[in-house]
Parts: sequence; C-alpha cells; structure tokens
Amino acid sequence: VTRIACCQLAPRVGDLDGNRGLALAAVRAAVTAGAEVVVLPELVTSGYVFSSAAEAAALAVPADGPLLAGWSEAGAGAVVVGGFCELGEDGRVFNSAAVVDGSGVRAVYRKTHLWDREKLFFTPGEHLPPVVDTAVGRVGVAICYDLEFPELTRSLALAGADLVAVPTNWPLGPRPEGERPPEVVIAMAAARVNRVAFACCDRSGTERGQRWTEGSAVVDADGWVVAGPVAGTGTLLADVDLRRAREKALTDLAHCLDDRRPRLYAPVTAEPAGNHRGNL
Amino acid sequence: VTRIACCQLAPRVGDLDGNRGLALAAVRAAVTAGAEVVVLPELVTSGYVFSSAAEAAALAVPADGPLLAGWSEAGAGAVVVGGFCELGEDGRVFNSAAVVDGSGVRAVYRKTHLWDREKLFFTPGEHLPPVVDTAVGRVGVAICYDLEFPELTRSLALAGADLVAVPTNWPLGPRPEGERPPEVVIAMAAARVNRVAFACCDRSGTERGQRWTEGSAVVDADGWVVAGPVAGTGTLLADVDLRRAREKALTDLAHCLDDRRPRLYAPVTAEPAGNHRGNL
Repeated sequence: VTRIACCQLAPRVGDLDGNRGLALAAVRAAVTAGAEVVVLPELVTSGYVFSSAAEAAALAVPADGPLLAGWSEAGAGAVVVGGFCELGEDGRVFNSAAVVDGSGVRAVYRKTHLWDREKLFFTPGEHLPPVVDTAVGRVGVAICYDLEFPELTRSLALAGADLVAVPTNWPLGPRPEGERPPEVVIAMAAARVNRVAFACCDRSGTERGQRWTEGSAVVDADGWVVAGPVAGTGTLLADVDLRRAREKALTDLAHCLDDRRPRLYAPVTAEPAGNHRGNL
Repeated sequence: VTRIACCQLAPRVGDLDGNRGLALAAVRAAVTAGAEVVVLPELVTSGYVFSSAAEAAALAVPADGPLLAGWSEAGAGAVVVGGFCELGEDGRVFNSAAVVDGSGVRAVYRKTHLWDREKLFFTPGEHLPPVVDTAVGRVGVAICYDLEFPELTRSLALAGADLVAVPTNWPLGPRPEGERPPEVVIAMAAARVNRVAFACCDRSGTERGQRWTEGSAVVDADGWVVAGPVAGTGTLLADVDLRRAREKALTDLAHCLDDRRPRLYAPVTAEPAGNHRGNL
C-alpha cells in the first residue's frame, strides 16, 4: 500500500513567504508520518481570491525557481503534488500544479478548465494533464474544476494513471443535509468508472469572504471514500493499494476501458452537437 | 414540474405474456398517479439472465409490433421509456430501449455498451442514444452499463437532453455500509456535471440466482437524489422541474458545457493512449 497525505491548509492571499513556510512544514510533517505522496491545495503558494490580474501576476513564480525546489527537498523522496501560481517564460500567468519528487520537478500542468473569475487572471493551459511514473506508481494531476470534465479524468485513466492528485480550492456551496460535497461525489464516480484512485486536497478557512468546503478526500479505485473530510486545517492520511488501479477488468467479459466505443464518441467529442441519431 | 415514475418490477425470464401484463399494469397505475414520464427496467419484456443466445432470440420482439404499441396505449399520452429484447429486421437481437408516447414509438436505442455475458446474447448498437423532443421536454436514453461511460452521458447533454431515462438491471454488489449503490453515485455525478436529470429504473428480486440492487433513483439536474430507492417491487414517483436542466451556466463566467475543451479531448477520444503531453 501507499500512504497518501492531503494537507488541507489555509494559505493567505499575497503572503508568498508565509505560504511557502506553511507548505514546507506540512510536507515535512506528512513525510514524518510516513506519507509517500503528499498533495497540497490549489494555488497554495499565492492564495486564490485575487482582486486583479496584476495581483495574480505579482504573486506568480517560475516552475524552475527555488519554490518548487523547496518542495522537492522537503519531500525527502516523496512525491509532492501542489498548486502554484505560475509565471510562464513569456510573462503569462497560469493556475498550475507541479509533480515533484526527490529528483526535482517532474511535470507541470497548467489548468485547462478555468473556473469563473480565474478566466480574468490566468491563461488556460493547452495540454491535458500529464501522468508521471514515480516510485509509488503512475501519478496524474487535475486541478479543481477540471474534475467536472469527465473527458479529462478519462484521459488520465487512458494514459495509465493509478492515482490522480487533485489540488483544489472548493468554494462552499449549498447541499442537502447529510450529503457529501458534490465535488467528492464527482471524484467517486470518476474513480469508479476509470478504476483510478483520487486524492483531493482542499483548503480550509475563508479568504476575502470566500468560505472553503474543507472537503479533502481520498477515494480508492472502487470509488469509495477511504479518508476524509477533515475539519479546518489538518492533514488527511490514507493507505491505498494503488495496484488495484491496474485491474481494469470488471468481469471476465467486461472491462472499464476496453468496453469504450471510441468510434461512436469521436464525432460527438469533436463537435458540440448534431451528431446523434436514433434508430428510427 | 414533471411527474416521473420508475416502475421497479420483477419480470420473469421467458414469460413474455406475463411480463407484458406486469408492464402495462404498472404504466397504467403510474399514469393514474399523475406520471407524465414512466420508466421501466431493462429487458422488462423478456427478463435478463438468459442461458443462451437462442433463448434470448426466442424472446425477442420487433420494435414495430404490438408490444410497444401496448405501452403507447397504456401510457395514455405519457412518455414511456422501457427496455426490451429487440428482434432486428435481419434476425439480430439487441438489448434495446424504446421511447414511446401517445403518437407511438418515437425512438429505439440499441445498447452500445454490453455488460459481461450480454456480449454472448446481443449485437451491440452502432449509434449513440437519441434525444427525443416530447411534451414534457427532451428525453434521452441510456441502458444500465452505458451509465459507466461518461462519453455517452455527456453526448446526451450535448444533444440537449433535459432528462435521461435509464432502464437498468443492476446486479447487487458489495458496498460499504451506508453507501448508495455505485451506479447511483455515477448517475449523481453525470447529472451534476451535465446539469441533466436522471431517472434510473432498476428491477427487483432475484432471477436465476442473480439478485438485483433495487436501486431505482431519480436525480435532479443539481445531482441530488430526489427519490429512491424503493424496496422490492414498487413505483417511485418524483416531481422534477426539468427546465432546470436548461440552465447550463454555473456562474456568470462558468458554463458546464461551454467550458469544455474539445480540441484538447479529440485526440484522446480517437485513440486509446499516447497523446498526453506534460509541459516539461
């Protein structure tokens, strides 16, 4: 089994130094607790609720700078996946996530589905997220709203992900009494239909009036929540057998990926509508 | 609002006449209770657990025969969606669902994702399911295992479905104490990410040793279960505002369908793997 940690933190918008320290301390503590994969929230370096594109740009850091190198060092060989406000080579700003291990930054993913006002602050990514071969298995990435696009989570399964790490900032919304956050239900379904584990790391507290869900959850490849939520600031630990994600056969005659009908989906995916035919 | 009924029945394998009567009585009772949409289980005409392809073929009926005409008549103007063992023009046998209203059979869908031993008995359909414009809104169809392919449920949303009717036979499987059937979790997620309502009609009892989940559920376009399950044989009634499914905007700057990135998905959908690129 692999020990996975989700560090549900409360970064402060604009406080790069303070947030850097929060993340490093959380990663070190998780590793001390035996974590082999540590997931941090979305935009944990900068905070989330920007008042302007200029504010976001002022908080953006390059992927090859000391900040992510610090995650690698603090991880002491563990895989660390966290969100950061990325300054691109050309001055553009991205809502990104990095996959880091003892060898340094393994991959950077620039969020392709920007939520709401993120569209005012960030350039959308132009590539689906990577799947990185690590010491504990193949780790894919998605960021927050990305989860709501099954096309993306399916793509990670097709690319061989055993675990999808999801740095997120889930705004608290209404839900019926006794129900899980809707984002967790969506992660459960994505896990189940793809037979891939998910580790969603939410953040805690309230930022500029935006309250967060505090809904961090680890979901196994059967689609069941094995850990979470955690109230407030804290670290969720879960031991998950990631090898289960390699078992895509559901029965001798059913397989969650091979039973797809890509030839039927293709026209629908390429065009927004109008390719549906009934038999009559 | 629209009143939706899911008639969780216990057809007997091989008993075409008896099953015909069960379905007609259930449709009539649902309509008397005010139902404007009536959903019946998968293969409600024939039963499900066939011992051979010959047995399935012997129970297959054509879409233009008296059986579906009977559903139309019993529906008295309501929309009836149910599963039947279909005899194609060419002698092939399909696991199909029909959408019927007062004017007769509006569409037939032949299941495209055959589960397990269904592959031994049925020819897979070659078209994604239809969306039918009815008196109560646009009704799409999926059958059982189809739900586990988000490509299909997304296609129904893109084709404008307000409600997806899901005739199903869910084999009972293990699940943690207190959890919903996994298929219901998948329907909730599909409803939420597409903002489409779902009405899943399961069956009851045990057939040739196969116990059914009895998990019928109606899910609204926010992804919440508004009715279900029902124990044993019985009819679930739910009043759902299907117009909510036309509200695809999540905020002024977010939209569950327009925020898709089809240009990024296309290569992944067309090919099974190998089109993923990270930024590093």
